[in-house]
Amino acid sequence: MTGSKIMIAFDADDTLWHNETYYQQAAEKFKQLLKGYQDAGRVEERLAETEIRNVHWYGYGIKSYTLSMIEAAIALTDGKVTGNEIGSILDIGREMLSADVPLFDHTADTLASLAEDHDLMLITKGDLLEQDNKVQRSGLARFFKYIEIVQDKTPASYQLLLDRYNILASRFVMVGNSLKSDILPVLEIGGRAVYIPYQHTWAHERVDDAHQHVYDEIEHLGQLPAFIAGLDG
Amino acid sequence: MTGSKIMIAFDADDTLWHNETYYQQAAEKFKQLLKGYQDAGRVEERLAETEIRNVHWYGYGIKSYTLSMIEAAIALTDGKVTGNEIGSILDIGREMLSADVPLFDHTADTLASLAEDHDLMLITKGDLLEQDNKVQRSGLARFFKYIEIVQDKTPASYQLLLDRYNILASRFVMVGNSLKSDILPVLEIGGRAVYIPYQHTWAHERVDDAHQHVYDEIEHLGQLPAFIAGLDG
Repeated sequence: MTGSKIMIAFDADDTLWHNETYYQQAAEKFKQLLKGYQDAGRVEERLAETEIRNVHWYGYGIKSYTLSMIEAAIALTDGKVTGNEIGSILDIGREMLSADVPLFDHTADTLASLAEDHDLMLITKGDLLEQDNKVQRSGLARFFKYIEIVQDKTPASYQLLLDRYNILASRFVMVGNSLKSDILPVLEIGGRAVYIPYQHTWAHERVDDAHQHVYDEIEHLGQLPAFIAGLDG
Repeated sequence: MTGSKIMIAFDADDTLWHNETYYQQAAEKFKQLLKGYQDAGRVEERLAETEIRNVHWYGYGIKSYTLSMIEAAIALTDGKVTGNEIGSILDIGREMLSADVPLFDHTADTLASLAEDHDLMLITKGDLLEQDNKVQRSGLARFFKYIEIVQDKTPASYQLLLDRYNILASRFVMVGNSLKSDILPVLEIGGRAVYIPYQHTWAHERVDDAHQHVYDEIEHLGQLPAFIAGLDG
């Protein structure tokens, strides 16, 4: 038991490294590909609708996104999209899967410094293989005592992790860029949460009642060690 | 600590319920769809090649399989496959995702009986959302103390689970239909393994050196309780 240590948990995508950027770039390529069929606004709208409708069965991640692009392309072109154009969509997905994992400025230093005195954990949502590949390619795996890839970030799923590792909610701090996934569910089970806003927030991740809750907010990861040092021992 | 209890772990797909059957049915539909372009043998061969080539980036599961069908369809038709035919491939994948989870004959009885005196664990490989949905729909979740969806079934990944839950390898029994994934890696770390052959074994799962290893084999799950009762205390 390490009951007196604080466990600091981190979201990964758009908290430690850039991720949403790749989806934005993919959407741009997708609009380019279909520009002979439909205007960009309509393409964007249909793709977003398709993604949200498919989340229940496809889940999150690049494979799901690729399947949604293909489905949207068929609908947007009334089935006229060609086999080779569909092949280009597969290529967009494959480029995303093999893309670099560009860390934010302060990520590596902050993790190295915090890992000296605290237990660190990574809690990321999404496709198991994709997330696992990204963690490995990021070079950050060595800083984390536990790495958890979960299907959902709900109060129940956080509680399950705390139970599994015998962590008291009062000794648990979650750091992330999503109020809905990283902040509110952790507050609900009695943990502490540090919000680092990211410039883009995917529509599906937005919450409306954020201001009824109490959490801390910093501008970037470089500010985290000072914040943690300021917490009651 | 429940150090003296045996932990009995089960693979899921084609050990507790039918799964491969759905892939076979999907492959039949895919061959039908492309029969105007290519003969069935060539379609089957190309699909298998595409799947194996894609496993590194796509991983296992229905979404990966759907993407491989689409890629193979484009290649097999020299890009002439139509948007609507690609739409039919998306439909094949979606039917698989929402299909029933047909249990084998002895599954529910055997798990209910074993759960009375032992800790049971489910260890399944593949897509997090797909496997999680299947476990929930199977109605079997209540029998398992732990449910683990892993990216790979290697000696190292089994060892990680044993460490996580403080399980001694000598008190661990893995039951499954794949020599490569369920049996050999568990023997390698000093656990015990019970092999239940399934009629179909996907080519990618076959191993050649199986006969150098020592494991137990039964014909169906109904024979498991008697086998477990016969193990040393």
